[in-house]
Amino acid sequence: MMRRLRRKGQSSLKSNKKYGHNELRDFCTKVLQKFNLPYEDAYLVADSLVQANLRGVDSHGITRMGIYTERLSRGLIDPNPKVDVIKETAATALIDGKHGMGQVVAAIAMKIAISKAKEAGIGLVGVRNSSHFGTAAYFSQMALQEDMIGIALSNAPATMALWGGRTPYVGTNPFSFAVPTGGDMPIILDMATSVIARGKIIMAAQKGESIPLGLAVDKEGLMTTNAADALEGAVLPFGGPKGSGIALLIDILSGVLNGAAFGPHISDLYRNFEVKQNVGHLLGAINLGAFAGIINFKAAVDAMIKEIKALPAAKGTEYLLLPGEIELNEQKKRETEGFGLDVEVVEELLNLGKKYDVEWVE
Amino acid sequence: MMRRLRRKGQSSLKSNKKYGHNELRDFCTKVLQKFNLPYEDAYLVADSLVQANLRGVDSHGITRMGIYTERLSRGLIDPNPKVDVIKETAATALIDGKHGMGQVVAAIAMKIAISKAKEAGIGLVGVRNSSHFGTAAYFSQMALQEDMIGIALSNAPATMALWGGRTPYVGTNPFSFAVPTGGDMPIILDMATSVIARGKIIMAAQKGESIPLGLAVDKEGLMTTNAADALEGAVLPFGGPKGSGIALLIDILSGVLNGAAFGPHISDLYRNFEVKQNVGHLLGAINLGAFAGIINFKAAVDAMIKEIKALPAAKGTEYLLLPGEIELNEQKKRETEGFGLDVEVVEELLNLGKKYDVEWVE
Repeated sequence: MMRRLRRKGQSSLKSNKKYGHNELRDFCTKVLQKFNLPYEDAYLVADSLVQANLRGVDSHGITRMGIYTERLSRGLIDPNPKVDVIKETAATALIDGKHGMGQVVAAIAMKIAISKAKEAGIGLVGVRNSSHFGTAAYFSQMALQEDMIGIALSNAPATMALWGGRTPYVGTNPFSFAVPTGGDMPIILDMATSVIARGKIIMAAQKGESIPLGLAVDKEGLMTTNAADALEGAVLPFGGPKGSGIALLIDILSGVLNGAAFGPHISDLYRNFEVKQNVGHLLGAINLGAFAGIINFKAAVDAMIKEIKALPAAKGTEYLLLPGEIELNEQKKRETEGFGLDVEVVEELLNLGKKYDVEWVE
Repeated sequence: MMRRLRRKGQSSLKSNKKYGHNELRDFCTKVLQKFNLPYEDAYLVADSLVQANLRGVDSHGITRMGIYTERLSRGLIDPNPKVDVIKETAATALIDGKHGMGQVVAAIAMKIAISKAKEAGIGLVGVRNSSHFGTAAYFSQMALQEDMIGIALSNAPATMALWGGRTPYVGTNPFSFAVPTGGDMPIILDMATSVIARGKIIMAAQKGESIPLGLAVDKEGLMTTNAADALEGAVLPFGGPKGSGIALLIDILSGVLNGAAFGPHISDLYRNFEVKQNVGHLLGAINLGAFAGIINFKAAVDAMIKEIKALPAAKGTEYLLLPGEIELNEQKKRETEGFGLDVEVVEELLNLGKKYDVEWVE
């Protein structure tokens, strides 16, 4: 997932108070309803944000309420879009999101993908005219309820240089795969294609700290450890030319394939208040029954997990972690104990609540 | 693609002679026919190997004839498998490769995927009981003839540690996406999920050279620059935990999903002469017509390529390269000029020719 820091990388002091996810979801739902989202849609967006917080991905949690409501109030997001199915086959669909909330549009697309996969073995649904959808894992996980593998990709506004370049061309285009298991822990890949979030480089520059080599290039396109120089250049994809190719591929599968914007043509969430984003997504579901079957799949994947957990770990490491394991453990903890919020986030939400007459949770 | 060096990383002196791809394909076809492959199948395998040489991926070229014929002669590969479709839906199929040549089985699967995609918008075909299939790009590119996006994944014998581990658990599991364009250059991603081939570390150890940090871990699971120590540990996935997650995902989608072997249960191509490999693949095709349409897609992807080519390059770099561009340029060159072969490869093929009464190309 993109781990963009809230706004421009301000310092982030945690509040002492711990907040409960139900109360926060309730608050966000009510605020979004004030922006004319139907209750179900407001709940969905609020739930996706709170889920991100629960999973420890605070950068994609309720800190996004500020920018979402800003874009809603400016008419850059349609609170109640009449989402269209443009084309349809047995296994695919192409959706016009009509510039609705990314979460609302992506959830519709994922439901169609799951429904297609029931009959056709796989469902693949492309989306155009959407907006920032939060964390990809929220949508890939929808497939787990049906014992399917879930797939979610999205493009994003340009912040990364491609390999060999020196200026941003692609976004930190995230993707997620959710894989059912027989146990209580699914395998959930969810990653941005950047090495690191730009916000972290902003923070390093503010503190005068250097950054590790390989994260970013300066304005000449040369790798740099100087955070200030990196800010004049561009963030790099993970894994060198391989990650660069993957970021480009995700833009092709999310943007080009579906007739959505791509590369630098996607409006920046935080900086472009003139043009709607036109983000593209691709959502998919694979029906295990069309392949080795649910029972066989779960037996094999559980055996695989058991083997991985029994592997000797690197010195200083207790055991190997599966993709998504850190987030799931965090979720269990935060669901029972609650979690802290940055003081700026609390202040922003408090002000939102005051302005739109929704009682804050404390 | 996996860039495994021929056998155990022997020094590789290039022959002075340049060989033509047609003559080499003809030679390999005839040798494979001696191992009871039907002409079409022998031609396909030979063509896939020669194509790898043409694209500059010599590690996956005709150097593989030695091990393929070795496994054929030991009955570990069926030269004429009765490949079964185990299950089928409108968009998917599950194939039993019956331990045929990986190329033969994967090509059957890809043809089914393309045929399904014509009606259903996407075709996705899983394969079990297959063998080493060479380069993934050979199969993803089959979709380009139909103006579709091609997808090819495979698992492979365990050579890499997962992130946090110190012993091999997954293969360098490769994947490829081939993307049609309006111009004469498609976009072809084709990569192994390792940082580097183990064979290159073997060569560094032999020469007493160090290796860059991040390629491999020692037997304690710690990153090392000592090539000899690395050989006692394991090669690492590209991109740290992200590449590790992708390698695992490819094993799940190729092996677990299809009831093929996975992780360390896949027989090593070069070291296990007791058990058939049972490699798993996943082949897919996406019909552009089911999304934005072929004309719109090509117009957008061509505009994207034009923009990328016009981007300012990093200092010291002439222009940005698209995924697959180096290989396609090499292919054009080698198709007209021919190409050299390692002297050991020539010797091995020469001996194969003598033994099986097929005239070598010189």
